[in-house]
Amino acid sequence: MSDDKLVSMADGAGGERMQKLIHDTLLKNLPFSRSAGEVPLEDLDDGAVVGDVVFTTDMHTVKPLFFPGGDIGVLSVAGTVNDVSVMGAKPIALSLAYVVEEGLPTEDLARITASADATAREAGVPIVTGDTKVVERGAADGLFVCTAGMGLPTHTLDHNARVVEDSTGRSQRWLLDSQVSSDATIILTGHVGDHGLAVLAQREGYGFDTEVVSDVGPINHLVEAAMSVGGVMAAKDPTRGGIANALNEWDEKSNVGILVREDDIPIRPGVLHGCELLGIDPYEIGNEGKALMAVVPDKARSIVEALRGLPRGGDATIIGKGTTEVEGVVLETSVGGHRVIEPPISDPVPRIC
Amino acid sequence: MSDDKLVSMADGAGGERMQKLIHDTLLKNLPFSRSAGEVPLEDLDDGAVVGDVVFTTDMHTVKPLFFPGGDIGVLSVAGTVNDVSVMGAKPIALSLAYVVEEGLPTEDLARITASADATAREAGVPIVTGDTKVVERGAADGLFVCTAGMGLPTHTLDHNARVVEDSTGRSQRWLLDSQVSSDATIILTGHVGDHGLAVLAQREGYGFDTEVVSDVGPINHLVEAAMSVGGVMAAKDPTRGGIANALNEWDEKSNVGILVREDDIPIRPGVLHGCELLGIDPYEIGNEGKALMAVVPDKARSIVEALRGLPRGGDATIIGKGTTEVEGVVLETSVGGHRVIEPPISDPVPRIC
Repeated sequence: MSDDKLVSMADGAGGERMQKLIHDTLLKNLPFSRSAGEVPLEDLDDGAVVGDVVFTTDMHTVKPLFFPGGDIGVLSVAGTVNDVSVMGAKPIALSLAYVVEEGLPTEDLARITASADATAREAGVPIVTGDTKVVERGAADGLFVCTAGMGLPTHTLDHNARVVEDSTGRSQRWLLDSQVSSDATIILTGHVGDHGLAVLAQREGYGFDTEVVSDVGPINHLVEAAMSVGGVMAAKDPTRGGIANALNEWDEKSNVGILVREDDIPIRPGVLHGCELLGIDPYEIGNEGKALMAVVPDKARSIVEALRGLPRGGDATIIGKGTTEVEGVVLETSVGGHRVIEPPISDPVPRIC
Repeated sequence: MSDDKLVSMADGAGGERMQKLIHDTLLKNLPFSRSAGEVPLEDLDDGAVVGDVVFTTDMHTVKPLFFPGGDIGVLSVAGTVNDVSVMGAKPIALSLAYVVEEGLPTEDLARITASADATAREAGVPIVTGDTKVVERGAADGLFVCTAGMGLPTHTLDHNARVVEDSTGRSQRWLLDSQVSSDATIILTGHVGDHGLAVLAQREGYGFDTEVVSDVGPINHLVEAAMSVGGVMAAKDPTRGGIANALNEWDEKSNVGILVREDDIPIRPGVLHGCELLGIDPYEIGNEGKALMAVVPDKARSIVEALRGLPRGGDATIIGKGTTEVEGVVLETSVGGHRVIEPPISDPVPRIC
């Protein structure tokens, strides 16, 4: 069988190759399912909406299972809490399912489970159901973890959120990728690249000068704080493909130009140094504890203030805006030039989530 | 590290070893999560109840991916539809998440996805959200599939269901393992052992005389038909550990004796023959398209009639009863003797689901 008829690592690394797999192999073979619900599968948003419930799932194959700042248990719970949260919903329950490779130390499974629970506690979202399967040695890579999450609409919980309209004129009910307006202010809740580089450094043993620690954690309290101020149009957790991928999804689905300023995008020196050594674009690396938000301009400063008052939002800042001045996603560099931030072909770092 | 500190295949095969893993390694490390919700994680029922929503998840590691009568796609959708359904809820949405091993033929992934969708169509429950991760060759075994499902209470949809009380005197809202009364009539919707033996035969290449085909498929229409008649106390899909495990869970959680008659439990000659050859108890093998139901006696015949009118219920029959005459789960054999059906130590056939 020729190689292009076999699934490859690049097919799973986000970006264009993955889009092709999703469209040609998956969505195409889901004729019954793909258009069901208020926000259906084929929209490829962070979650689906069915009835009044947001529903989302993540499969986690991070390698190694433990890394600086977290482990696969933290990652699995945070990943799904965050996907529900950036839909503008309040996550209320999680599922947790394991594939365990025979020979995994029971103590590792216990630690990871305790991490998942501690993260659930931080988020305020319990794990209510689960499943565990064990496979033979060599049939898995230690542990894979699948989480799913449910969330309820925030507008039934918080009537302060300002209602805006999306690009199609619909009244906002959820925070969707299609709702970024051409006058939006874009906020990022902290530094980029920490998670991807921390996992990579742990795995490959690169001797970076600065120890980089993953940012993995739940961001639901950040999104809720912003929505309490009001005026949030869209939110996104920039995981696979990083902020480059997330901003391009907004550009594409909202049909709006996006301009961000290099000097305003927070990045730690250790991450910048590691990325330079490896030839990786820090904007294309996955984050696991950050949110991008597109908000109405006159609420932006109040939202940043609210975010900075929370443990995971201390470095929140305005990084750019929606605009009709440019097409696509454009970076204003430190020296005043402009360069296009393309959607990544694939994530430069495999198995970070 | 000594072997008892490493996870083994037996820890994942249902039965007592698995109970120990679940209690000592998992539930013990979920102090925040384990008691949340109306039907919490620690009840270990088929699903959880949060708010008005039933929520459940399954991880699927069946080997091989394709087997007589189905594939991992059918299995994944049916497994979760069935878990929601036997809670007495109407399944409304599914998630579908993949771990794909690099090198899996894209055509296999397409076929499996199409199977999942066709099963979703039969059940009337769309797949609304998903995730796909690809790992290196040797890091997984072709494909693992995780599904999660949501369901809504049937009593808001069907006011014909007769309300009964469970063993604790609570008014029935869900079909729970704790609700089997000592005068219950026990119904099985068809033959036992088909799935487990079909997978085993395909995998190991045993030359059985009769070709055994898996029963894998959604049973939600069966449970709904029975609830429309009314008087259903509890329902269960006898997967890992077979009807032996399922009946013992009822016995334990409802504190009621159960008597079933060997002559009344449907079993295909090919399954019986295969089990005899392999020294496997057919009552301990997993089924994937069957329901056990405990119902009030005066509704039992009407429910059996209703089930027989449906495609997957043609062989539905009464197999026994709840009783105070015996303790535990007791089989009345063909020759009139009695033997105890013990809870299985573990499923005799690994990786059938």
